[in-house]
Amino acid sequence: MDEDATSPSSQDRYARGLEILRAVGGRHDPAVVESLADLAPDVARYTVEFAYGDVYARPGLTWRERQLVTVAALTALGNAAAQLHFHIRGALEVGATPREITETIAHVSVYAGFPAALNGLSAARTVFSEAGTEVDVAADPGPAGDESRYERGLRLLSEIDGDAGHRVVESLRDVAPDLGRYLVEFAFGDIYAGDGLDLRTRELVTVAACTALGTAAPQLRLHIGGCLSVGGTREEVLEVITQMAVYAGFPAALNALAEAREAFASH
Amino acid sequence: MDEDATSPSSQDRYARGLEILRAVGGRHDPAVVESLADLAPDVARYTVEFAYGDVYARPGLTWRERQLVTVAALTALGNAAAQLHFHIRGALEVGATPREITETIAHVSVYAGFPAALNGLSAARTVFSEAGTEVDVAADPGPAGDESRYERGLRLLSEIDGDAGHRVVESLRDVAPDLGRYLVEFAFGDIYAGDGLDLRTRELVTVAACTALGTAAPQLRLHIGGCLSVGGTREEVLEVITQMAVYAGFPAALNALAEAREAFASH
Amino acid sequence: MDEDATSPSSQDRYARGLEILRAVGGRHDPAVVESLADLAPDVARYTVEFAYGDVYARPGLTWRERQLVTVAALTALGNAAAQLHFHIRGALEVGATPREITETIAHVSVYAGFPAALNGLSAARTVFSEAGTEVDVAADPGPAGDESRYERGLRLLSEIDGDAGHRVVESLRDVAPDLGRYLVEFAFGDIYAGDGLDLRTRELVTVAACTALGTAAPQLRLHIGGCLSVGGTREEVLEVITQMAVYAGFPAALNALAEAREAFASH
Repeated sequence: MDEDATSPSSQDRYARGLEILRAVGGRHDPAVVESLADLAPDVARYTVEFAYGDVYARPGLTWRERQLVTVAALTALGNAAAQLHFHIRGALEVGATPREITETIAHVSVYAGFPAALNGLSAARTVFSEAGTEVDVAADPGPAGDESRYERGLRLLSEIDGDAGHRVVESLRDVAPDLGRYLVEFAFGDIYAGDGLDLRTRELVTVAACTALGTAAPQLRLHIGGCLSVGGTREEVLEVITQMAVYAGFPAALNALAEAREAFASH
Repeated sequence: MDEDATSPSSQDRYARGLEILRAVGGRHDPAVVESLADLAPDVARYTVEFAYGDVYARPGLTWRERQLVTVAALTALGNAAAQLHFHIRGALEVGATPREITETIAHVSVYAGFPAALNGLSAARTVFSEAGTEVDVAADPGPAGDESRYERGLRLLSEIDGDAGHRVVESLRDVAPDLGRYLVEFAFGDIYAGDGLDLRTRELVTVAACTALGTAAPQLRLHIGGCLSVGGTREEVLEVITQMAVYAGFPAALNALAEAREAFASH
Repeated sequence: MDEDATSPSSQDRYARGLEILRAVGGRHDPAVVESLADLAPDVARYTVEFAYGDVYARPGLTWRERQLVTVAALTALGNAAAQLHFHIRGALEVGATPREITETIAHVSVYAGFPAALNGLSAARTVFSEAGTEVDVAADPGPAGDESRYERGLRLLSEIDGDAGHRVVESLRDVAPDLGRYLVEFAFGDIYAGDGLDLRTRELVTVAACTALGTAAPQLRLHIGGCLSVGGTREEVLEVITQMAVYAGFPAALNALAEAREAFASH
């Protein structure tokens, strides 16, 4: 796309990015600028101008949503402890509750495994302790009334992934039926049923984690559709994917876009 | 698959999981439960109920095998130091020898590179030191008699991957013949020939590492067949893949199942 | 490929590898040998014989290039801090400048995201501090004259990726035009335009990072072609990919070779 004739100057982008980074990072002098001044000042400038001035400044997602999907991506990647710490703190700064943060991290257990989620929760504990924040740990009481975990899981699977989700479970019957059962019971019956995070946000988190991982293309395609089914919009899905160019690289975002095209076409 | 009418209650799953986690973790009060009590008690509960009560309790693999494949996966992922430490210790607790553990980690060098293996060995050293364990370091004396590394490698490649393995090496002749030679000499002639781990266990470890990585689908498919060729069963392959849903996430396990279907069909 | 009748003995490979490892590591007694002596001496031996004696000893790339592409790969992987530290130091030892190292790491931000690059720069700072090295931080003054970031980016995109690169940007117009703009402005207009590293080296670094990641096959194919367009040779591309077998595993290298074949055929 041609550059917009009214595109902002570098000064504008830097000023806009600095304002956002100050709000998210809670500091007047962002650490990234100071720490890179005598090593790679251009990278600090790109962080402010591009990551914050271009991407974070975009409409389409709230800052709270941007922080939660970044926390999800960094939890899934599992190799960016300093940034995960920063963004969990940033999530608090922009209005996410501790409960939303721990639920976001726990949600990633489905897509990247328990170690990733446990290490993310470890980072959250450190941040909450430093910030003097208490977590509202209203433990999930489990399925209501007569509904079993499996029934609750099937209900949520239907609501989110519809027929495509059922086809995944059905396809497992002949080779690994128990894995299909765990998918329904644990992934949907336990995690997706958690009431600390609504389904739309859960699916934005799922899109972020699967985009960042780069190894979950079929699941990403399914859950982009799922996001649209539970109140998310195409714009919101594309915003999450675009943001992942910052946190996981352009290949991750571009390859996720290919899945989004397919998901949009078939939704 | 419909939930079994006799499926265990949450209490049963928790009790079963707690018993196993106590045995593997070597502690009466598992650290994961204590550490998450005031942060995300549901995740602690899911760890006990699902990861241990559902998955670890399954027949089809011994606890020793479950620990070794988990060590392999976490070594390959390279981003879960705390869990890798825990599971190396757990491997000792359930009867794996230090030699089997270091061989498992070394084996992963073929699939995830030397840094992953060296960092895994670093974690093993720490665990062994804490546990006061000595390692039997019977260094590999190299190929016997007249057999060169290449010949030994070709022999093992034939035994494990048969014609499909040879096709991989042949396909490299026109573009990167030396990489093909390194594959035969190092991967098979050095690593696979190591006598601290039998071929069947090596292939279960390979399936675990490649499933967790999510970036080695062709190699995973080949080595699922290889596992069947050296005494592994379809059930054992599926058990490893199912367990990877816990350590690397459901997408990793589901995508690996797709490869398993193909491998089973052509074996 | 059959083993060369004149292939070096293990003693030769070890001696050759030790010589190189001493030069890169800057120590007479390599740390990896000492640290593994009583734990897994075979792995130490393979590191010396295979990683250094076979792969590092190859012609086709200079040691400086081998160190830079290794730094790129380890930065992208983000889960090998000790090895990244070692190889940044090794890059200095074999003649790379601090500026080339920070530019290499910054370049990886395009392919693996900002967290990976920021953590790589953090490692570089530690190494430079320990080595008493100053960095020449000549900050990029930005596009010259009337050329905007977008115009500069398009110019570089054309020079490197030609029509294929333009097709990527065009393909984004209908679904995520701003992501296409960021790709042109930031990835090419900012990062690729940095004058601390020439385009040929940048593309070798890109091939290394994308090979190691294993999740960027379309981008790897494109940039293998890009490497050839800016003065790189097929041999150099294949050397980088072969070296990645050591740092990211054989699947990463083999799967990258599949992309290289396609890229070579269509270049």
